[in-house]
Amino acid sequence: MTTTVTLPTTVPDEYPTRKRPTPSLIFRRDPVVWSTGATGPIDTQTLEDYDKNGYLSVDQLLTDAEVELYSAELDRLATDPAVRADERTVVEKSSNEVRSIFEVHKISELVAKLVADERVVGRARQILGSDVYVHQSRINYKPGFGGAGFYWHSDFETWHAEDGMPAMRACSISIALTENFAQNGCLMIMPGSHRTFVSCVGETPAEHYKQSLKEQEIGTPDQDSLKLLANKHGIEQFTGPAGSATIFDCNCMHGSNGNITPWPRSNIFVVFNSVENATVEPFAAPSPRPPFIASRDFTPVG
Amino acid sequence: MTTTVTLPTTVPDEYPTRKRPTPSLIFRRDPVVWSTGATGPIDTQTLEDYDKNGYLSVDQLLTDAEVELYSAELDRLATDPAVRADERTVVEKSSNEVRSIFEVHKISELVAKLVADERVVGRARQILGSDVYVHQSRINYKPGFGGAGFYWHSDFETWHAEDGMPAMRACSISIALTENFAQNGCLMIMPGSHRTFVSCVGETPAEHYKQSLKEQEIGTPDQDSLKLLANKHGIEQFTGPAGSATIFDCNCMHGSNGNITPWPRSNIFVVFNSVENATVEPFAAPSPRPPFIASRDFTPVG
Repeated sequence: MTTTVTLPTTVPDEYPTRKRPTPSLIFRRDPVVWSTGATGPIDTQTLEDYDKNGYLSVDQLLTDAEVELYSAELDRLATDPAVRADERTVVEKSSNEVRSIFEVHKISELVAKLVADERVVGRARQILGSDVYVHQSRINYKPGFGGAGFYWHSDFETWHAEDGMPAMRACSISIALTENFAQNGCLMIMPGSHRTFVSCVGETPAEHYKQSLKEQEIGTPDQDSLKLLANKHGIEQFTGPAGSATIFDCNCMHGSNGNITPWPRSNIFVVFNSVENATVEPFAAPSPRPPFIASRDFTPVG
Repeated sequence: MTTTVTLPTTVPDEYPTRKRPTPSLIFRRDPVVWSTGATGPIDTQTLEDYDKNGYLSVDQLLTDAEVELYSAELDRLATDPAVRADERTVVEKSSNEVRSIFEVHKISELVAKLVADERVVGRARQILGSDVYVHQSRINYKPGFGGAGFYWHSDFETWHAEDGMPAMRACSISIALTENFAQNGCLMIMPGSHRTFVSCVGETPAEHYKQSLKEQEIGTPDQDSLKLLANKHGIEQFTGPAGSATIFDCNCMHGSNGNITPWPRSNIFVVFNSVENATVEPFAAPSPRPPFIASRDFTPVG
């Protein structure tokens, strides 16, 4: 299933993190939009806004019928004994409910088809200016009534430190299967924060991912940097109906508050990386995370 | 300081809670607005909306100068060694920061003056249709960067069960000293929920308040009732600048999410109860909470 590759180690570390005793801010050294004049599903204005803000929203990426289809698929997967027993499935112990299924594009044909859909991969290609592969995919079910939030982080910080992603040439798409309200712990992004890399302190312990999927401590930005970014950029909340989607740059500072409302949130989450930015040895971790969290299969999608 | 009174025990329990093994919904038996044609700071339309929704907002209750004055008073109190050592002050152990100061209208002359200000007590009198006394007052400092939320609850449920408040004839005013954003864990209310009393399960243990001020379990509404109320009424978020205020009925179902933003929230919080609704023996607790949390001094304000 997984392609074994010999990881090169000679790529320079443009974004050092978890290596120094004090945090620092590093200006982004990579473009945000890598294509030049390429055509695709994203119009010029939206692409310019993405460049500036680090994200874009699509009001209706999926039809209502597709939302139903993928919600039913989520239910099917969450109740399939083989899937539940799979190491790629995160089951909450206290409730015995499935929270996430990783590498879901390899588990579900339906999801694989969606990932390869021009509406999805076409947008990623247009932003990243090349063929792309799936660095990570998952389907998430976040309960209401006290579901936990996620503290501020840049995905790239982790992907660089722990997965060996050299440059900022990746993006994530979150496709909502339920409505996102301002009240139910929706995604928050600091617009424009993608141009600043917050170099974090701390040394990555072995098998850090087992802890960090629950609550991250290593790789957490310091409060002074967060204050500076929040006061400079503000904080945007992402609301929208089921079927809407948000695409955001790998270095956006983002997080979410908890959710005490009764309204759960489900989404399909896919990280695309440029095939020209394939991961190498981790820049600041003893060993790479397992391939179901950080793929080593660089086969282009579609 | 505290008036000692002999608590009557013959008041009928119109809102039984924490007495039965299953939750239930009880229709409100009391008016929401108790005055008839009374004049005061609240205009007729706003009073009608309060009757319907269970809350009202005041865009600018305090001037900017007053916000500064009360913020400085909060800082002064929080750094006063005598106040810090007082049992009415809640200090967070991990950070050594003051989180709340209870009975603050008896500790601070400035706050006492504000409570007795016509803009504040006048509104409470107008809603409750009588003279009013302070059932509880506090000043709150809620930090950013992961400050905890508060789960859904009706204040009246606790005041009835643990403090012996007979009827729904009380209201709270929260005066913001910092801006409330949708992103920093602002107050959420289900509009119209004040007409339904959610009778909770569980038996109140002795000295329950010591635990419940941190995280409440007993007196927590069940998920089915919350789903019903949230889907019927929706959930409103209360945002507004420093100096704005929200007044809400004692039986509003309300709560707040956590706050991962860098932006803290401070407010002055006062609970007014009608002098005609003075508290009696607790309806469902072994003994009343201490008077700095639930006053037994029924002296009218102003």
